[in-house]
Amino acid sequence: MVQVPPANPPERLLLGPGPSPVHPDVLAAQSRAMVGHLDPWFLGVADEVAAMLRQVFRTENQLTYAVSGTGSAGMETAVVNLVEPGDTVIVGVNGVFGGRIADTARRAGAEVVALEEPWGRIVPPERVAAALRQRPDARFVALVHAETSTGVQQPLEEVGALLADTDTLFLVDSVTGLAGVPLEVDDWHLDVVYSGTQKCLGVPPGLAPITFSPKAEAVIDQRSSTVRSWYLDVAAVRRYWSGDRAYHHTAPISAIVGLHEGLRRVLDEGLEARWARHAEVGRLFQEHIQDRDATLLAQQGHRLPQLTAVGWPEAVDEGKLRRRLLDEHGIEVGGGLGTFAGSAWRVGLMGEAATHACVDRLLDAVDDLLDG
Amino acid sequence: MVQVPPANPPERLLLGPGPSPVHPDVLAAQSRAMVGHLDPWFLGVADEVAAMLRQVFRTENQLTYAVSGTGSAGMETAVVNLVEPGDTVIVGVNGVFGGRIADTARRAGAEVVALEEPWGRIVPPERVAAALRQRPDARFVALVHAETSTGVQQPLEEVGALLADTDTLFLVDSVTGLAGVPLEVDDWHLDVVYSGTQKCLGVPPGLAPITFSPKAEAVIDQRSSTVRSWYLDVAAVRRYWSGDRAYHHTAPISAIVGLHEGLRRVLDEGLEARWARHAEVGRLFQEHIQDRDATLLAQQGHRLPQLTAVGWPEAVDEGKLRRRLLDEHGIEVGGGLGTFAGSAWRVGLMGEAATHACVDRLLDAVDDLLDG
Repeated sequence: MVQVPPANPPERLLLGPGPSPVHPDVLAAQSRAMVGHLDPWFLGVADEVAAMLRQVFRTENQLTYAVSGTGSAGMETAVVNLVEPGDTVIVGVNGVFGGRIADTARRAGAEVVALEEPWGRIVPPERVAAALRQRPDARFVALVHAETSTGVQQPLEEVGALLADTDTLFLVDSVTGLAGVPLEVDDWHLDVVYSGTQKCLGVPPGLAPITFSPKAEAVIDQRSSTVRSWYLDVAAVRRYWSGDRAYHHTAPISAIVGLHEGLRRVLDEGLEARWARHAEVGRLFQEHIQDRDATLLAQQGHRLPQLTAVGWPEAVDEGKLRRRLLDEHGIEVGGGLGTFAGSAWRVGLMGEAATHACVDRLLDAVDDLLDG
Repeated sequence: MVQVPPANPPERLLLGPGPSPVHPDVLAAQSRAMVGHLDPWFLGVADEVAAMLRQVFRTENQLTYAVSGTGSAGMETAVVNLVEPGDTVIVGVNGVFGGRIADTARRAGAEVVALEEPWGRIVPPERVAAALRQRPDARFVALVHAETSTGVQQPLEEVGALLADTDTLFLVDSVTGLAGVPLEVDDWHLDVVYSGTQKCLGVPPGLAPITFSPKAEAVIDQRSSTVRSWYLDVAAVRRYWSGDRAYHHTAPISAIVGLHEGLRRVLDEGLEARWARHAEVGRLFQEHIQDRDATLLAQQGHRLPQLTAVGWPEAVDEGKLRRRLLDEHGIEVGGGLGTFAGSAWRVGLMGEAATHACVDRLLDAVDDLLDG
């Protein structure tokens, strides 16, 4: 019989690609007493979560809720509910997360037109326009608003305007974007947008906020085939969130109560103030890290402030440096993914971590390690 | 701008079909400081969770972990990773949850042989044997160990022995069974078993413990088609849990640390002692509730102790009684599903609620309401 002691986590400053640090009030909220998922009190909390998510997404979309899984479950929800076998979809692939959308769409039976761009570059809106002229029947165009693997911020407004008067939907991954950089779901004509809780919202991982426009909902309602996933089937799940409260699956109560507190904090700060804070702190870090012989891997003019892919010169062993940063300074940053593995860091200054103090602590630690 | 106050849950005694009450130590564990999902400390916690799950499942299966979603996500993980389009599967359908397995298997492209039985009855092992003689090519036989919609406990050993020497796998839903009634994954030759955290484990909803036998893992490794789900793809997820720790999706840290504490409590009590406690308390309730003019809807000899479907006579308005129980006594029980909707309660005495005190409080409250 294994005798396992209690889990007592070490103190960490979380400056990687997520999870970001969580405020004690949010941690406390998710440890409040358990209640049932059909309890009238909890259904009221779920309604408040949906209402607050609408504010953070800047949308009037009725179908706005938190998927019972992490950000990737939000991605899969968006894709599998819109795709029917044989559909064509156009997907921008300029990093890991665009690649996942393409992979998931293929599993759902779609033919994928992948618009590949070098890592660190945006997908030019004119490339989307050209692809759409070739395939005007596309079910959706998918772009990643905030590419967590490269630190690129994708412009969305032009493509949104282009798609608004067509039958093609606009699907957007804003896992790392939401509450960190401007995102205007309604004004920009975005049809399906999903996010994660553990980035700029500052809530533990486990839920995926998602919103569907009436145009997207109509596509779901007019499907001729069954959605391939039972767990993520929007037509069933929406009955629980905004319909007759029919039981589908047991909602993750603690996580939703935690998200409730996190959203309260976001709205208390104010969304624009939060965007401005992320912008200022991120630019400060990006300016100073370049003095340390590091480069920024995202193209100039399209850099996310909250997530920076930092390229190290060959002489630097990024893995060793990163382990020492964790072991000696208690600071977590992320390693590079894919093309950037072994030569880059991913530094997140998200939510509670978007402060001057965090930037100072990280730069001091880096200086200490590079000197040592 | 909506001004939302903090969420302060009411005091509830949770005696429904789940979530069950959560011990304060488990609630406290999931509010401990956030750490990264690739932090060496957290990977150690994940290893301990897997080791403790093996003890609770009574298995040596290497591939044992917690799916990042609720019990239904465990169901979908089991089904979609085993089914390839065109496969035949045999599914016992004697309540809601067998029906879900059949539905999910169809979405994954399977031809389903549904063994339908009246609600409240088991699926006779000889019916499974007969179906298997008709379809010896079946990819799996699926049975629900603990039917949460009816309170039926399905015998598994005979079917397990029958399948052990065939190429057909044995898939078992033990969402409500695990840690409440005997379950012997290895001894009974069960190939894939999934559960939920919010039942007899006494942990908040949000994770689905799951285990795969080497025979099941071999079937996954020999698939000729891609799994239809990206999020639940076992071949990718197992690299995080037991392989090279490759990033797939961000694990729900808080929930896993909570499960860690819940499993410690289960093993501290001892699995056999926990089964015995559930058995004794459940029988006590079932004996006494029949004195209140109520009937037990599960067939005699196959009643789960931890979950009882209680049939009320027509004169009783179960919905009104249930609402008054919540409002006046702070006790939650569940309503009937499907066939039993409007005429039955589902009473759970699971985990922390499997005590004489809970039975007394519930019976006293029922007496008070029936008198009033």
